[in-house]
Amino acid sequence: MTSFRSDTIIAPATSIGAGAISIIRISGDAAFQVADALVAFKDGKCADFPGYSIHFGSILLEDGSPLDDVLVSVFRSPHSYTGENSVEISCHASSYVVQEVLRLGIEAGARLAEAGEFTKRAYMNGKMDLAQAESVADIISSEDSISHRVAFNQMRGGFSHELTVLKDRLQEMAALMELELDFSEEDVEFADRTNLIGLLDEVLGHIDSLASSFRVGNALKNGVPVVIAGAANTGKSTLLNALLGEDRAIVSDIAGTTRDTIEEVIRIGNVRYRFIDTAGIRTTDETIEKIGIERSVRKISEAEIVLAVVDASASEEEISRQLSEIVSYVSFERQKLAILVNKCDILGLNKNVSINNKFVTFADTQIVRFNISAKTSEGLDEVKNWLSSWEKDNINASSDAVLVTNMRHFEALSAARTPLLRARSGLTSSLPTDLVAQDLREAISDLDSILGTSAITADTTLSLIFSRFCIGK
Amino acid sequence: MTSFRSDTIIAPATSIGAGAISIIRISGDAAFQVADALVAFKDGKCADFPGYSIHFGSILLEDGSPLDDVLVSVFRSPHSYTGENSVEISCHASSYVVQEVLRLGIEAGARLAEAGEFTKRAYMNGKMDLAQAESVADIISSEDSISHRVAFNQMRGGFSHELTVLKDRLQEMAALMELELDFSEEDVEFADRTNLIGLLDEVLGHIDSLASSFRVGNALKNGVPVVIAGAANTGKSTLLNALLGEDRAIVSDIAGTTRDTIEEVIRIGNVRYRFIDTAGIRTTDETIEKIGIERSVRKISEAEIVLAVVDASASEEEISRQLSEIVSYVSFERQKLAILVNKCDILGLNKNVSINNKFVTFADTQIVRFNISAKTSEGLDEVKNWLSSWEKDNINASSDAVLVTNMRHFEALSAARTPLLRARSGLTSSLPTDLVAQDLREAISDLDSILGTSAITADTTLSLIFSRFCIGK
Repeated sequence: MTSFRSDTIIAPATSIGAGAISIIRISGDAAFQVADALVAFKDGKCADFPGYSIHFGSILLEDGSPLDDVLVSVFRSPHSYTGENSVEISCHASSYVVQEVLRLGIEAGARLAEAGEFTKRAYMNGKMDLAQAESVADIISSEDSISHRVAFNQMRGGFSHELTVLKDRLQEMAALMELELDFSEEDVEFADRTNLIGLLDEVLGHIDSLASSFRVGNALKNGVPVVIAGAANTGKSTLLNALLGEDRAIVSDIAGTTRDTIEEVIRIGNVRYRFIDTAGIRTTDETIEKIGIERSVRKISEAEIVLAVVDASASEEEISRQLSEIVSYVSFERQKLAILVNKCDILGLNKNVSINNKFVTFADTQIVRFNISAKTSEGLDEVKNWLSSWEKDNINASSDAVLVTNMRHFEALSAARTPLLRARSGLTSSLPTDLVAQDLREAISDLDSILGTSAITADTTLSLIFSRFCIGK
Repeated sequence: MTSFRSDTIIAPATSIGAGAISIIRISGDAAFQVADALVAFKDGKCADFPGYSIHFGSILLEDGSPLDDVLVSVFRSPHSYTGENSVEISCHASSYVVQEVLRLGIEAGARLAEAGEFTKRAYMNGKMDLAQAESVADIISSEDSISHRVAFNQMRGGFSHELTVLKDRLQEMAALMELELDFSEEDVEFADRTNLIGLLDEVLGHIDSLASSFRVGNALKNGVPVVIAGAANTGKSTLLNALLGEDRAIVSDIAGTTRDTIEEVIRIGNVRYRFIDTAGIRTTDETIEKIGIERSVRKISEAEIVLAVVDASASEEEISRQLSEIVSYVSFERQKLAILVNKCDILGLNKNVSINNKFVTFADTQIVRFNISAKTSEGLDEVKNWLSSWEKDNINASSDAVLVTNMRHFEALSAARTPLLRARSGLTSSLPTDLVAQDLREAISDLDSILGTSAITADTTLSLIFSRFCIGK
């Protein structure tokens, strides 16, 4: 943990908008002095108030005229969010008042906080590790119960605990090997190699399962990606609008995620599904069309669920050709696929595709199939019901299993695998002890980077992480 | 004051949006019980906590899984905003968390508060009078220092104090006259009539000055209305855009004010000016055009400031005709008027209007005049500077003079004049004492209706007043 001198920061902690009150946070060595310069209290000085107490006071402008009557909550180090001396000023929710309080606070010696700086200080002061700090932004942006639960569990330290257990094991192993080095002339072996390999496999297995939870965790955090694929004029856009219907949700702009297509989100059950419309897919030589198609193919490969839309009025041959194109891009082990036979309203009974088959067998795979009309919304409830099975398949509602939701964590876990695999083969091939120990240390450092517990967490990494936050957090 | 049973209400007190924390307020007889049902505290029960203290706790969902870690501020009756037992829950600013806390609170026995219900309770419990309560909404919506100061002064009781002084005087006079009635057979006169008339004139003068402050108070609260008048094609819209320039402000949607034209606001000095573009004015027989022109004429009559725009390239005769049309609608005693000679850029030196005259004498009145170009922004700084003289003319920056900003208050003050004038003429014409006393009581009741101190403030009046508030205030 780097030690750092804490100047005093100020920022609004509540959003500006229609509300009754606004909260302004001040934290740092001089928080109480700044508060005393800002607020005339009836019952003493902020510097003397006990922690976890609330005090009424007035804020005066330079000319002595009153700006607002406020309540000030006092938190004394280390019993505050940041771990520093902090106050929270509760004033009227007027943009003018908030502006003036900030201005007066800055004139009294505080400076405007950077994005995420309060949470960064909580981390720097050991109130939470880096993974916990990162989850704070996720909690705030969570809009459904499952992504909230995952983020909250992470903030409470669930993920950190699992990482710490793994780290401790690796550290123990590394320590044993380093001990052997000290006695290297005596050729002792403190740890049984077979035993060590078994332990290492356990750690590797755990890291693998954490890393692979990122698929589900990321889908939960950003909405489960559902691609609507199909040839042009099969009614994909109409389908999207029909699915959204009155459930149309605003896609929240989650900092740090970039989306190159306009996407719509609906909540089914406890999970948000993110619908992605794609350009029609067909083999072509035209360069421009190729780019659009390449993008569609990439979207399909990134999706959790693929809805393949075909036009019921097309010829059986054409339908088959279109389906084989889409199916060729789908990975059945990790993706769900359904065929939606659209425009059934026009045909009454479908002439080309037998209406009674619930499944289509295609390229040796049984694929679920729905007869729908995007125009009349016929059959869409069944589609939504089928979509919601993703939740049942992927999430155990009763468990608090840790899910990795953060790309940085996923990358660090993936990075840790390499030295661990190297250490494992070093153990089997009886490589020199010091090399194996070094590999273990490297993996430990990768896990450390998630928690931010090593002394070397770069300032640029921290800046990157906390810039995702809003001001005042 | 009507006594009322206080069920327990809950609402978010901060706006939903990007922020670090959200505050949820609970108030009422069962506030502490609801809080104890909602939050598992580490250090006891809310029912036992002292007022003005803060406590850490966790909110659990029905299945026992944690929803959020929160801080709860405790306020014990009568030392709270509403005067009732109240708590403020500070949770993470996630829309999901806020929703769930509200839901759990409602399940624990609270109900969702109506708009303004917290402040209504503060009024009902005698924490503030009606005029003070009304100012709370004004404080929140104030966007500049002067309208904020006026609202804050009103909340602090400045206006209420002046009204109370007037009321007390009238009450004293009425009491004296009623005393005379008791001794009517003895034909005593407790109060010298000349003396009473003098006192009444003082009260009337004060009420007149309060009522007339509504013009300035209302202009401050909603933005000083500036009408841009002139014939078609004189460049009024270009002028509006040029004036707004980079100072373009979003017109806040102040509840209770309806505007039938799109208006733009800029701040000059400490005051916001509201610009109103009008349809071209000229005498016409066409019905549809007449309606537009009638509206323009009405806008001019409601304005504090009129900018008469003429086209420098028009003939002197035409300019004169256009000006006389506009000037005929302006009341010089209460309105400011400037003539803007537009399109000076085209002409270089103006051929029709002598460029050196700073004033135009028109219909025996000297009118300030600016040569401008809306297109190149030439001369607009001078116009803005002239506009800002409204502030100097109307507001004494160093004084905390009470300004009436509320239409309801203005109407009540105006209503009080009638019985007071009747009482005055009753006194001069030696009308029976009981009739005069009755007039005084009527005026007192009008003033009471502003403060809400009479027992008969109708529930519909209260509902109307507090529905202007946001939920949670």
